Amino acid sequence: MEHYDLAIKKLKERGVTINDIAEVTLFLQTKYVKGLTLDHCIEEVKNVIKKRESINAILTGISIDEMTEKKLIDKELCDIIMDDEGLYGIDEILALSIVNVHGSIALTNFGYADKIKPGIVKIVDNDGHNGNKCNTFLDDIVCAIAASAASRIAHYGIEKK
Amino acid sequence: MEHYDLAIKKLKERGVTINDIAEVTLFLQTKYVKGLTLDHCIEEVKNVIKKRESINAILTGISIDEMTEKKLIDKELCDIIMDDEGLYGIDEILALSIVNVHGSIALTNFGYADKIKPGIVKIVDNDGHNGNKCNTFLDDIVCAIAASAASRIAHYGIEKK
Amino acid sequence: MEHYDLAIKKLKERGVTINDIAEVTLFLQTKYVKGLTLDHCIEEVKNVIKKRESINAILTGISIDEMTEKKLIDKELCDIIMDDEGLYGIDEILALSIVNVHGSIALTNFGYADKIKPGIVKIVDNDGHNGNKCNTFLDDIVCAIAASAASRIAHYGIEKK
Amino acid sequence: MEHYDLAIKKLKERGVTINDIAEVTLFLQTKYVKGLTLDHCIEEVKNVIKKRESINAILTGISIDEMTEKKLIDKELCDIIMDDEGLYGIDEILALSIVNVHGSIALTNFGYADKIKPGIVKIVDNDGHNGNKCNTFLDDIVCAIAASAASRIAHYGIEKK
Repeated sequence: MEHYDLAIKKLKERGVTINDIAEVTLFLQTKYVKGLTLDHCIEEVKNVIKKRESINAILTGISIDEMTEKKLIDKELCDIIMDDEGLYGIDEILALSIVNVHGSIALTNFGYADKIKPGIVKIVDNDGHNGNKCNTFLDDIVCAIAASAASRIAHYGIEKK
Repeated sequence: MEHYDLAIKKLKERGVTINDIAEVTLFLQTKYVKGLTLDHCIEEVKNVIKKRESINAILTGISIDEMTEKKLIDKELCDIIMDDEGLYGIDEILALSIVNVHGSIALTNFGYADKIKPGIVKIVDNDGHNGNKCNTFLDDIVCAIAASAASRIAHYGIEKK
Repeated sequence: MEHYDLAIKKLKERGVTINDIAEVTLFLQTKYVKGLTLDHCIEEVKNVIKKRESINAILTGISIDEMTEKKLIDKELCDIIMDDEGLYGIDEILALSIVNVHGSIALTNFGYADKIKPGIVKIVDNDGHNGNKCNTFLDDIVCAIAASAASRIAHYGIEKK
Repeated sequence: MEHYDLAIKKLKERGVTINDIAEVTLFLQTKYVKGLTLDHCIEEVKNVIKKRESINAILTGISIDEMTEKKLIDKELCDIIMDDEGLYGIDEILALSIVNVHGSIALTNFGYADKIKPGIVKIVDNDGHNGNKCNTFLDDIVCAIAASAASRIAHYGIEKK
C-alpha cells in the first residue's frame, strides 16, 4: 500500500475522514475567502496529506496513541500521555512538522484550532478521554492538517482551481 | 538605560503597557487556573519581558514598524508590511523567538490570541490600519508575550508565588 | 521513580550517559568559553534534562525506537524509521521540543552536531544501523541535549557557577 | 519591479549572488547526491528565493542591516545588532521563516552552515565586522537559502530535472 493511502486508512480507523478535516478547514477559512466550498477544502486537505512530512507525522502520532492504549510503553510515559493536560507538549511539536512547512498562517490557525476544537477535533478530543482510548496525538494532527490546508487556500486562493 | 527598561518604554510609546498585556494573559488563562489574579499575570508578563529573547524581539519589531511608518525602508517592502494581510509572515516568525522558549502551551495560545485579538491586541491592530501608523510587528509581539506569560502560569501554577 | 531519574535510566539503557552528552557539549562550546570544564558541562546537561520538555522528548523518542526494534508498529512505518536516510524528519522535530526552549544558539548547535556527529552521537548512530537496533530518535535527542547545554553555557557563562 | 527581482538585486547590492549561494548548497549536498552540479544548485536556489517567505525574509533582513549601518534605529539596538556575538538571536529566527517551509533537512543544514560558514558566508560574516558594515541578518539569510536548496535536492533528487 502506498504511504499516502496508509495514512488515510489509519486516520479512518481512528475515526477521522478527509471530509471531517475539510470541514475544519472550511470553518477556519470561510470568512476570508468568498465562495470557498467544502470540495475545495477537501482538495487542499489531500494536498497537505500527500506531503512526506504529513504522512510521517500521521503514522508516527497514531502509532504512539495506539501503543499508549495497548500499554506497550512504560507506565510512567503512558500516564503522562493519557493525562495530557496540555503539559506533555510532544503532541503539538509533532504536529508542527506539518504546520511548519505551510508557513505562518498555518501556525496561527493551528494554535486557534487547538484551543477552540471545532467539529471533529472536539469529537476526537472527547473520545480520547473515554476509558482506555488515547487520542493525544490525533487531535493535534487533525488541527495541523486542517490549518495547513487553510494556509494553502490563503496563499493560493481559489482561482488556482 | 537597561535594555529591559528600554523595552518597556518602547512598548509604552507605541501604546502598550504591561497592564494591557497582563489582561490578555488573564483572559487566556483564567478558565484553567482557579483564583488567577491580574497581579499574578503582571508578574509573569514582567518575567517574560526580562528574557533576552523578548527584549530583542520587542526592540527589533518596533524598530521595523517605526522605519515603515517613516518610509525609511524600500517602498516595496513598506507596502508589503503596511498591507499585512497575513501573508507577510515575518511578524509572526519574529514573535516566535519569544514563544518558542516558553514551550507548546505558549505556541497554541499565541495562535489563538493572534486570531481572536483580545483587548489591547485589537486596539493595536486597528490603530495600525489608520493612516500612516504601522503596528504589523507590535500586535504579534503583544500576543507572544501574553501567550508566554500564560504558559508560565500553566507550568508553574500560582502556588509558586 | 521520578521522571527525571527515569529519563536518565532510559538513556543509560540505550547506551548514553550524562558524561557522554557532556563531552559533546564541551566539544561544541570549548572554543567560545575559556576555562570550560567537563564538570561544568555535566551540570548544564543535567539542567537541560531536568526540564519537562526534555524528559517527555527522551521518554517518547526512546519508546518509538524500542517499538520499532520490537516491530510493534506497522511494518511500513518501521521501514521508514529504520531506514532514516534523513527524510523521515520526525526525529529532528521531536528533538526541537528540547532545542526550542533554549534559544537560537541551541538551534544552530543542534544542526551542527546532527551533521558532524561528535563522540557518542556517532557511536549511537552507527549502533542504530546494526541489525535490528534502532536509534533513529536517540541520536537527535543526544544532539539536542548537548546543544541546549551549550546554549546555556553561552548565555550564562561560567561565572554563574 | 517584481519582488523576486528586487530580492535578487538587494542580495547583489550586499555582495551576494545566486552563484555564491549555490556554491554553498553544492558544498552541503555534494557528498549525498552523486553527480550534483552547480547548475542544478543554482536552479534550486532560485526555486527557494521565489517563495514568498524567502523574499520577505531577504527584504526585511537586509533592511535591518542597512538601518543599523545608517544608525537610523535606537543606539542600544544598533549596538546589540552590530555586536552579534550569537546572543542576539533574531537573525537566526528570521532565517527560520525560510528554513521551516523546507523541512528538517533544511534545519540541520542551516545550523551546520551557520557554524562552519562555508564560502560566501564567511566573506559576508567578516565583511560585517569591518567598520560600520552590518551583515548580521545577511549571513543567516544566505545560510538559510543554501540549506533550503540542499533540502530540496535531498527530497527531489536530480532526476526531477
